[in-house]
Amino acid sequence: MSRIESDAFGEIEVASDKYWGAQSQRSLGNFDIGDIKMPEPLVKAFGILKKAAAIINEEYGILDPKLSKAIQQAASEVAEGKLTAHFPLVIYQTGSGTQSNMNANEVISNRSIELLGGEMGSKKPVHPNDHVNMSQSSNDTFPTVMHIAAVVEVYRHLLPELTNLRDAFQKKSDEFADIIKIGRTHLQDATPLTLGQEFSGYVQQLTNGIKRVEAVLPNLSCLAQGGTAVGTGLNTRKGFDVKVAQEVSKLTGLEFKTAPNKFEALAAHDAFVEASGALNTLAASLFKIANDIRYLGSGPRCGYGELSLPENEPGSSIMPGKVNPTQCEAMTMVCAQVMGNNTTITFAGASGQFELNVFKPVIAYNLLSSIRLLGDAAKSFRLHCVEGIIANKEKIEKTLHESLMLVTALNPKIGYDNASKVAKNAHKKGLTLKESCLELNMLTEEEFNEWVRPEKMIGPKD
Amino acid sequence: MSRIESDAFGEIEVASDKYWGAQSQRSLGNFDIGDIKMPEPLVKAFGILKKAAAIINEEYGILDPKLSKAIQQAASEVAEGKLTAHFPLVIYQTGSGTQSNMNANEVISNRSIELLGGEMGSKKPVHPNDHVNMSQSSNDTFPTVMHIAAVVEVYRHLLPELTNLRDAFQKKSDEFADIIKIGRTHLQDATPLTLGQEFSGYVQQLTNGIKRVEAVLPNLSCLAQGGTAVGTGLNTRKGFDVKVAQEVSKLTGLEFKTAPNKFEALAAHDAFVEASGALNTLAASLFKIANDIRYLGSGPRCGYGELSLPENEPGSSIMPGKVNPTQCEAMTMVCAQVMGNNTTITFAGASGQFELNVFKPVIAYNLLSSIRLLGDAAKSFRLHCVEGIIANKEKIEKTLHESLMLVTALNPKIGYDNASKVAKNAHKKGLTLKESCLELNMLTEEEFNEWVRPEKMIGPKD
Amino acid sequence: MSRIESDAFGEIEVASDKYWGAQSQRSLGNFDIGDIKMPEPLVKAFGILKKAAAIINEEYGILDPKLSKAIQQAASEVAEGKLTAHFPLVIYQTGSGTQSNMNANEVISNRSIELLGGEMGSKKPVHPNDHVNMSQSSNDTFPTVMHIAAVVEVYRHLLPELTNLRDAFQKKSDEFADIIKIGRTHLQDATPLTLGQEFSGYVQQLTNGIKRVEAVLPNLSCLAQGGTAVGTGLNTRKGFDVKVAQEVSKLTGLEFKTAPNKFEALAAHDAFVEASGALNTLAASLFKIANDIRYLGSGPRCGYGELSLPENEPGSSIMPGKVNPTQCEAMTMVCAQVMGNNTTITFAGASGQFELNVFKPVIAYNLLSSIRLLGDAAKSFRLHCVEGIIANKEKIEKTLHESLMLVTALNPKIGYDNASKVAKNAHKKGLTLKESCLELNMLTEEEFNEWVRPEKMIGPKD
Amino acid sequence: MSRIESDAFGEIEVASDKYWGAQSQRSLGNFDIGDIKMPEPLVKAFGILKKAAAIINEEYGILDPKLSKAIQQAASEVAEGKLTAHFPLVIYQTGSGTQSNMNANEVISNRSIELLGGEMGSKKPVHPNDHVNMSQSSNDTFPTVMHIAAVVEVYRHLLPELTNLRDAFQKKSDEFADIIKIGRTHLQDATPLTLGQEFSGYVQQLTNGIKRVEAVLPNLSCLAQGGTAVGTGLNTRKGFDVKVAQEVSKLTGLEFKTAPNKFEALAAHDAFVEASGALNTLAASLFKIANDIRYLGSGPRCGYGELSLPENEPGSSIMPGKVNPTQCEAMTMVCAQVMGNNTTITFAGASGQFELNVFKPVIAYNLLSSIRLLGDAAKSFRLHCVEGIIANKEKIEKTLHESLMLVTALNPKIGYDNASKVAKNAHKKGLTLKESCLELNMLTEEEFNEWVRPEKMIGPKD
Repeated sequence: MSRIESDAFGEIEVASDKYWGAQSQRSLGNFDIGDIKMPEPLVKAFGILKKAAAIINEEYGILDPKLSKAIQQAASEVAEGKLTAHFPLVIYQTGSGTQSNMNANEVISNRSIELLGGEMGSKKPVHPNDHVNMSQSSNDTFPTVMHIAAVVEVYRHLLPELTNLRDAFQKKSDEFADIIKIGRTHLQDATPLTLGQEFSGYVQQLTNGIKRVEAVLPNLSCLAQGGTAVGTGLNTRKGFDVKVAQEVSKLTGLEFKTAPNKFEALAAHDAFVEASGALNTLAASLFKIANDIRYLGSGPRCGYGELSLPENEPGSSIMPGKVNPTQCEAMTMVCAQVMGNNTTITFAGASGQFELNVFKPVIAYNLLSSIRLLGDAAKSFRLHCVEGIIANKEKIEKTLHESLMLVTALNPKIGYDNASKVAKNAHKKGLTLKESCLELNMLTEEEFNEWVRPEKMIGPKD
Repeated sequence: MSRIESDAFGEIEVASDKYWGAQSQRSLGNFDIGDIKMPEPLVKAFGILKKAAAIINEEYGILDPKLSKAIQQAASEVAEGKLTAHFPLVIYQTGSGTQSNMNANEVISNRSIELLGGEMGSKKPVHPNDHVNMSQSSNDTFPTVMHIAAVVEVYRHLLPELTNLRDAFQKKSDEFADIIKIGRTHLQDATPLTLGQEFSGYVQQLTNGIKRVEAVLPNLSCLAQGGTAVGTGLNTRKGFDVKVAQEVSKLTGLEFKTAPNKFEALAAHDAFVEASGALNTLAASLFKIANDIRYLGSGPRCGYGELSLPENEPGSSIMPGKVNPTQCEAMTMVCAQVMGNNTTITFAGASGQFELNVFKPVIAYNLLSSIRLLGDAAKSFRLHCVEGIIANKEKIEKTLHESLMLVTALNPKIGYDNASKVAKNAHKKGLTLKESCLELNMLTEEEFNEWVRPEKMIGPKD
Repeated sequence: MSRIESDAFGEIEVASDKYWGAQSQRSLGNFDIGDIKMPEPLVKAFGILKKAAAIINEEYGILDPKLSKAIQQAASEVAEGKLTAHFPLVIYQTGSGTQSNMNANEVISNRSIELLGGEMGSKKPVHPNDHVNMSQSSNDTFPTVMHIAAVVEVYRHLLPELTNLRDAFQKKSDEFADIIKIGRTHLQDATPLTLGQEFSGYVQQLTNGIKRVEAVLPNLSCLAQGGTAVGTGLNTRKGFDVKVAQEVSKLTGLEFKTAPNKFEALAAHDAFVEASGALNTLAASLFKIANDIRYLGSGPRCGYGELSLPENEPGSSIMPGKVNPTQCEAMTMVCAQVMGNNTTITFAGASGQFELNVFKPVIAYNLLSSIRLLGDAAKSFRLHCVEGIIANKEKIEKTLHESLMLVTALNPKIGYDNASKVAKNAHKKGLTLKESCLELNMLTEEEFNEWVRPEKMIGPKD
Repeated sequence: MSRIESDAFGEIEVASDKYWGAQSQRSLGNFDIGDIKMPEPLVKAFGILKKAAAIINEEYGILDPKLSKAIQQAASEVAEGKLTAHFPLVIYQTGSGTQSNMNANEVISNRSIELLGGEMGSKKPVHPNDHVNMSQSSNDTFPTVMHIAAVVEVYRHLLPELTNLRDAFQKKSDEFADIIKIGRTHLQDATPLTLGQEFSGYVQQLTNGIKRVEAVLPNLSCLAQGGTAVGTGLNTRKGFDVKVAQEVSKLTGLEFKTAPNKFEALAAHDAFVEASGALNTLAASLFKIANDIRYLGSGPRCGYGELSLPENEPGSSIMPGKVNPTQCEAMTMVCAQVMGNNTTITFAGASGQFELNVFKPVIAYNLLSSIRLLGDAAKSFRLHCVEGIIANKEKIEKTLHESLMLVTALNPKIGYDNASKVAKNAHKKGLTLKESCLELNMLTEEEFNEWVRPEKMIGPKD
């Protein structure tokens, strides 16, 4: 069951149960590359933008209120995700995203026609170009929806999940405030710190990471809309750009503003390269954190064994007690993906030409993917790992006291040279420090117990 | 409508129309990260592997022939893609791919049970671990299916499409063999060459690219199967590894061999990093080629305009004659993606620990994605662009003769100094070389026409 | 001529004319890897830090004022670059930079001894560890000097040069404000804009780039000093960390503060990954700008030819008028380097372990290298290219009027369909728009001249 | 003290003790970008190439034998590194390397003039362009020396050092053949293997790495020489290209051949992207190996502690027995650098335009840097770490027997369920397996000792 749709290239058949039109259908044939479709947040952003444009065009008196209302309703449905199934196009298409803009225009046009009782494909009374795309060009709509989608996803998904993860680590840091453990530098035994202090480093990394993500929002919030084909704003009215940003702000409840320079906004995607840099930094942080945690949880017998991680699924049908740090693994894989996405975005972002960067869809996809993956992984990591981490106090305590570096505390008592002898003797014979002290008659057991106090070694002197 | 499935963690509900079992279901809850599922070539490779294992286990006399036959049939269905809908797990899960191995075991177990008239979820008479996973471990099955999938996709998809693309360029190079054009170095006018020569450079790049991809097949064809948990082959029989590779070769019609060292095969994925390097090089080649073509096709009036690219879709509703080089855009976006995937694979591949690399799914996904995208883009680029490229002979000829560098041909006739005067005079006054020669009375029009012959400048002297 | 120096490993010969000691000498033997030495800004930062530490240790009463004064003088000499030749160690050494910290301690110790009339190598009266390194550890000094060096270089070199470059582009944008030219999207002829508008996009990119670099300074200004071995501050006095940051601020005239969390400051280098992300974004901007300029300057006859770039060196002995865009080439090579440095920094930054990241020297080198290269290239590009760019008005004007897209202006006069006919006829026959109009009797020459006015197409309608 | 040199731009002063001429001097002023000079292997390759060209030009009868002999001698001195101080130009210059080609021409010209008793700077009797650069263009000489330098460095430095490192690991693998240890997957205790088996994985990685490097030599050995300005070979004689490759082979003792397609050889550097991919894979391997080794050597008390690494320098003045794995740190830093270099090379390699890639110097520098660093680091790592690794047999043995996974061996004796009980009881109470068995009365001590035999678990069953 199909109907006939048409464009400047002629007629083409489209399945009757689809709202899209000729240009979308043509794109399906011309770009059979991979199977990754335009991300839903971007599709929804098209709904928001097309609604905003209709409202303002009506306001300027250039769009018939009846048509405007129909467009607004259809666009709302797109914004709510009700019509996502009608956006079948893949990422690797025209580099300006033209076909996805036309996909939005066609779906909204046909749905509006339906609402107004017309015939789909007739382009009457709502024309995809003349009405839905009025005052717009693919060259300014696509970067606009890229920015809207990124800002929405950062606000609604990434920042909340990062905050939750940071808070979960803060809670653990507080919980572990009094657990003194061996420090490790160069992977070698070093002076002690508390497990809470160690976790406080992760909290700081995440606190900074949240600020880094927030810091890219001002540039992401600048919308290209109003630049039309080359940035000059040809075919728009003065003020259209500012009004669109205001309307989008109203519709999303988030703050957007018009880009200060539309030539830059079409020809470069520096704001996305910048945002990807922040996500890349976050990935570096999370990689380090997840890696530490799986090493600290390594064992149960033959590893560091200082932490017990929640057991979420069978590790092995053979070995009881084996808990694989699978959430750390998923997290570090996500981090590796985000770093690769950053390379893609960097290359693509650097490759704009004259008045247009034609790597828009691949840039959009990679950034939205990084945002989603980091948000999802932060949530999964928190729920299924961090919140359930338990400190193996006994093991931590045992390890701490086996360490030779506590000898440092004896320097002021028996002198550096004697302390060295104690440590070397212990190392050579496999003794504890105390055993070595006693064997060498350096001090009594009481003295040792009084002087070798890790809890005195975890901060500066007053 | 659901049934109860169980694993070491207890019972869990699974929808009745799904073949998967408890561990797959649990994974869906524990790893709600992104929406990209295990690529189908990998799922199919699980079908091939599990079938091969059943055949060999039966051969060793450790698997009941009746169960083996059922497993073989169910595995064949997986290999044919009939059960792909029953593989719902995402990429970002356990880093060993354990849950996807269990997904395969569970689906094949339940489907075998169904074939044998048993009750799904009962694990009788075909147990996912004891029978389907017999002699195997996730740690060796997952790298094995990674390699099978990559080799199959390279042979069946990428190499044929690269060859087709190379051949299409060869045809164009032949077609353009006699069209002399201006050369450009540093983007500046230089000495001439033929358009056929220019395209021969692309042919060479692709010929080399094909060889580079072929060169990674020997290492990709080495299968980890037989290493089981840590590479030692515990719980397998001697020779199992070799037999599996033979059986997989038979089932696929492609040559596989057992990995010479199973410790390397589980703990590192250097073969994937290597393969990604070849794809990355290919991406660099294709980026250059597609970029050249879109610049040579730039215009129609205000660019280089030497080539006309096929018009596949409306470029703009305003400007007739505007053809956007959309296939070049899709291709260069794919190249940027492949370069980013290479970063991900590199980082992930470098991050193995002791006996296992736990970035397997992200490595597999990125490489299979690069293979598919390059194959798809090569096909799309060929069909919708390269094969339809037309040389704008008139424009090429005109540009060539406007160039000042043809003056080089006059050096032996009028001397370097006079030739310089001709060229400088032409540059200054905006004359053609001939006009400048005549104005300066350097030679007659007949002499100029006889001596300034670009066709003498396109190769070494005899 | 040599003297004997010693450390815990024993004695070792050092050339008499060198200030370094045993540990530096040992490092020369143990790390014969490449030939890139610690960057001078980092060496100078060691001078600043060691001076600050001496001042504060004296203040705390734990360092003899006489020794302190000698250390301060020697450290000042390091800070002024007078002793850089005595820092021979390469980048690829201990990952904590321990040997470079010891290099600083040894040089300052020996120079202090010399100042005080002692014997070099005797460690008396100024000991490299006990006095020069007092209250410090390699683990906090090295990240501290990384941050000091980066901040100083950004303030003194990069930001001024970026600002100069931005201003040079602003001047050109103003100069070119009235030159209307053809726009190009997808490399295809599009609607017009002014050359000033096109350059305003570059100005915006650089303005944003400057802000991006400024935005990373707050985190770069946080100093790890005071964390000592693992972040706890063992062996320092309370307040030491804050005082060091204040003293460094005083000595440099730039604002530094103590890191809010020393565990993070030793174990991660997120601030450097973040900073590299900003430089990476800048590189993407500059790549686009330099690339545009060389294409717009391509020719002189067979390219776009809209700009003339300054001729700085012979392009070719054959072709007069050939100007190679060599400054654009140097700039884009620098950008490619900075992007690669970003990959190195990302991978290294993600790879910290427990209480320490041991990729410090490679991170420091790559970031300082990116800062310097971008600053140097910005200056070179400005001086030798941007400031001397000349618009080829005649060529720009000619190209503009050859374009077919000006037909857009006729839509309201003769209708879209007739305008299409005019354009298609022109395209087919190679006519100008005016010729086509006249041939088709669409309007008179006077009408054409009145209606087709590019200057009306470069902004929104009132 | 200076002399006057001149080029097409006029006169310029050069220091009298330098052999370089006007164009080199001019480049120093125009490209004040960073301080990294052309790598010496590339300078030496210029000596080889210029000598080969002189020999062949003489053979063709177009170069006076007397001049040829002088050029050959001067070029030999460059090839031997005697004149490297006269190559002061930096990497970030003209993207074709033109100025470094002119630097070579000028140095050889002036040195030849000196040899022949002429006046430096006079260009008589040996002209830098007419004689030293005869039959050549920067566009073919620079890629030629890139390839010569890379091949020489790979053969003379990288491959020998990789082989040495592989052999050192093989020796350790043999030495450790009988040491059974706990395996670790997901960082969790797993079934056992021998330390020799673990190291055999590293041997395999390096064996493959050597083959990967060897596999890029055929394409690296293809020389662009003979393509001149745009690949056509204008101004050369037929056969010049083949003869140059033969002569370079003779001079270096290594096999070179002329590139099959000169257009590709000038416009793309895919062979370098390919080679960098092999080095990137090698970096991924070495990263994994060095990382494993430092973790296995972590401790001495509070880490894995299975290996003792050689102590090369003082780790800390406080903690005796602290050995920092500094060679692993240097190696992993080198790997991170090589990965970043790969990004630079990829981007630069993809960015060729028409007949020339103008990122030649940055590509050359990054690849030569990766080759050198990997060779140097392989040597340093072998000498100062691998050859001195000692297995801590006692600790390995103790850890192995503390592991719970040996319970697997009891499955056939007491059944999976009872084995599970034993393991869970041991895990819960912190017992050894044996203690748990005895406590639960599962078997006698004799039975346990007989049945739980790790040496039976390290290979497949017969």
